[in-house]
Amino acid sequence: MSSLQPQINIARLEKLLDDFAQIGKTKNGGVTRLTLTSLDKQARDLLIQISQSAGFKVQVDAIGNIFIRREGLKDLPVVMTGSHGDSQPKGGRYDGIYGVLAGLEVLLTLNDYNIQTNHPIELVMWTNEEGSRFAPAMMGSAVFTGKLDLDQAYAIKDQDGITVKQALEDIGYLGNAKIANQSIKAIIEAHIEQGPILEQQNQTIGIVKGAFAQRWYEVTLTGLAAHAGTTPVNMRQDAVVGLSESVTALNRLALHPDSKDIRLTVGMITVSPNSRNVVADHCFFTIDLRHYDSELLANFETLIYAQLSEIAEKLNLKLEIKKVLSMPSIHFDLNCITSVRKAAIKNNYSAIEMVSGAGHDACHLSSIAPTSMIFIPCIKGISHNEAESITTSWCKAGADVLLDTLLELSQ
Amino acid sequence: MSSLQPQINIARLEKLLDDFAQIGKTKNGGVTRLTLTSLDKQARDLLIQISQSAGFKVQVDAIGNIFIRREGLKDLPVVMTGSHGDSQPKGGRYDGIYGVLAGLEVLLTLNDYNIQTNHPIELVMWTNEEGSRFAPAMMGSAVFTGKLDLDQAYAIKDQDGITVKQALEDIGYLGNAKIANQSIKAIIEAHIEQGPILEQQNQTIGIVKGAFAQRWYEVTLTGLAAHAGTTPVNMRQDAVVGLSESVTALNRLALHPDSKDIRLTVGMITVSPNSRNVVADHCFFTIDLRHYDSELLANFETLIYAQLSEIAEKLNLKLEIKKVLSMPSIHFDLNCITSVRKAAIKNNYSAIEMVSGAGHDACHLSSIAPTSMIFIPCIKGISHNEAESITTSWCKAGADVLLDTLLELSQ
Repeated sequence: MSSLQPQINIARLEKLLDDFAQIGKTKNGGVTRLTLTSLDKQARDLLIQISQSAGFKVQVDAIGNIFIRREGLKDLPVVMTGSHGDSQPKGGRYDGIYGVLAGLEVLLTLNDYNIQTNHPIELVMWTNEEGSRFAPAMMGSAVFTGKLDLDQAYAIKDQDGITVKQALEDIGYLGNAKIANQSIKAIIEAHIEQGPILEQQNQTIGIVKGAFAQRWYEVTLTGLAAHAGTTPVNMRQDAVVGLSESVTALNRLALHPDSKDIRLTVGMITVSPNSRNVVADHCFFTIDLRHYDSELLANFETLIYAQLSEIAEKLNLKLEIKKVLSMPSIHFDLNCITSVRKAAIKNNYSAIEMVSGAGHDACHLSSIAPTSMIFIPCIKGISHNEAESITTSWCKAGADVLLDTLLELSQ
Repeated sequence: MSSLQPQINIARLEKLLDDFAQIGKTKNGGVTRLTLTSLDKQARDLLIQISQSAGFKVQVDAIGNIFIRREGLKDLPVVMTGSHGDSQPKGGRYDGIYGVLAGLEVLLTLNDYNIQTNHPIELVMWTNEEGSRFAPAMMGSAVFTGKLDLDQAYAIKDQDGITVKQALEDIGYLGNAKIANQSIKAIIEAHIEQGPILEQQNQTIGIVKGAFAQRWYEVTLTGLAAHAGTTPVNMRQDAVVGLSESVTALNRLALHPDSKDIRLTVGMITVSPNSRNVVADHCFFTIDLRHYDSELLANFETLIYAQLSEIAEKLNLKLEIKKVLSMPSIHFDLNCITSVRKAAIKNNYSAIEMVSGAGHDACHLSSIAPTSMIFIPCIKGISHNEAESITTSWCKAGADVLLDTLLELSQ
């Protein structure tokens, strides 16, 4: 290993980000690059061309995940990094691709400094993380970790009836590498935070210790339709009032200090008959609930049920609650987390431990290998949006920390 | 005038109601009899057949309103009664037609007792009160009172592109009587309450002193879309929370004793992007506000604006409020109201003064002649619904009071 302290090349990294942002560029400076489209192919081709020019070995597996390998000195398990290259429709220019290109920049830096690691390092571009064209999201890593059967994945169709397998063939990325034939030492994914916490707390690096547990509920309140003019307010069974009191109360519960930054969202509402001069007899709404602490989440669920029951009873409404999703929290590997922390400290970046509120390929990957993530801030927390943006210093910080983390893990 | 105290024939009235309820009868015991359809024609034909058999003169005007005249002793202005014969889709068997048939029953009773009134009495079946097939509602009375131009009304089309004029011709009810060629002394419309007040207060007769002023508002709250997982609740600009706090606060204001039974309804809500894992950036909702006292209504509007502004500011949301409708309250004629009250007292029916929260033909008619209405309860206040129902005693009470009111006014 060279005695010179290696430094990533921020100009090169920003050039890479800019080049990839041209592929599927939108009018408002974002990116639309749906998975397995010709635009996705362009991004894949460009990644492979740069990698092969730099002397890295490229393999594509049967679900289109691309593995770019920089050999180590010894025949040891690989250290992996990477993220996804696809975007949301009218998405941002950093979501996913930042982690891929920060990883590429690290490999190129290792070349620049002629650094030899003991473990091989593999940069991966995972297929279809967004799930916008083919559901579910995080498909490439799901197949890689055995959470989704390959043939099942192949059969999934987009809105035009094209299957995943057909789409892989169409762009020439139905690879022949065996799924998950590597022995893996550790996996580190760099990603923009997609939330406002780091920027608001003036922190540069998020040391990601895991991902939130998540529960989804569907709530229906049923009252009695009535004439808006003839029915006194105190004689109504108004489902909209039930909805409103429920959301107001749940939001207050979520903001209570005891709830410890629980994430509660009512994002979808349907009202029936939805007529301006008829008191509504039905309201349907969803609750998305997330927290790292499964016990706190379970306790909060009890609070939700009690609160909704109390309001429904008070307003003489019928209440139905269906729990439609329940996923446990994910706890990343302590050694990986420590490596990220040490790398942040070494580079003098302010850093906090945090938990991912969003799903990432790393969440699946953590089930088969020691994993952690590195978050950098994004401006105002805006993501899945053309306005998604980061600063040069954040961009550099993430790659610096990734470099030192991978160096430590691959020694 | 006969010395015998006349009594309406409740058995005959209930038979009439039952016969008309067969025309457009629905599976669940309601009625679908949209205006100017072949079913409406059947109801019109039946009314005319009974009326002509009883010796009354029938005229149809150019918008299809049917006038059934029982002559008076003198050439004096007519006393009118009546209501509409059309229904909502899957409507009830009493809304509208009760007022027509109670009026018919009164005329038949006057025949039974050989009573001669000084003023002629005209029973009217008004065209298209519901507005379900052709908007606007209350079309026949609007044309009759000059509020809607006849040629404009003729040109209005239903969903199949059929005009009002064509529909009138198709069923043979494009009449040749001149619009509003009568001199009118007074108009009394009997109707089911379509609300729960009379039944809840254990009253049999509503002496209707007018109709509510009404204002409609459209409210838009704009926040910032955000990821449900990555954005702490206290860092959001959540339009759904804004909606919920707004409706909760407005509902409490409406229930305050100072608001004196103001009718406030949020019946229509649209959320954007309406996705269960995205914090909503837009909420649109409507407010329907009604009260008899215009000053109270204006003051309440000020409260609404202040309350919504306070909530929007607190939650960092952009607020837009558009007032899209403002109709003044309608005050019925004091002499007509007094006649109704005297008739209720004479018959020993419990009665309260009340204000109509719904629109009725009488609301238009009050602009050209002294007017009032008689309400009877309907079970649980349910109307515009197949479950609409009344009791025999309420049915009789409304017709008794109508008889004595018309007798007094036509003397």
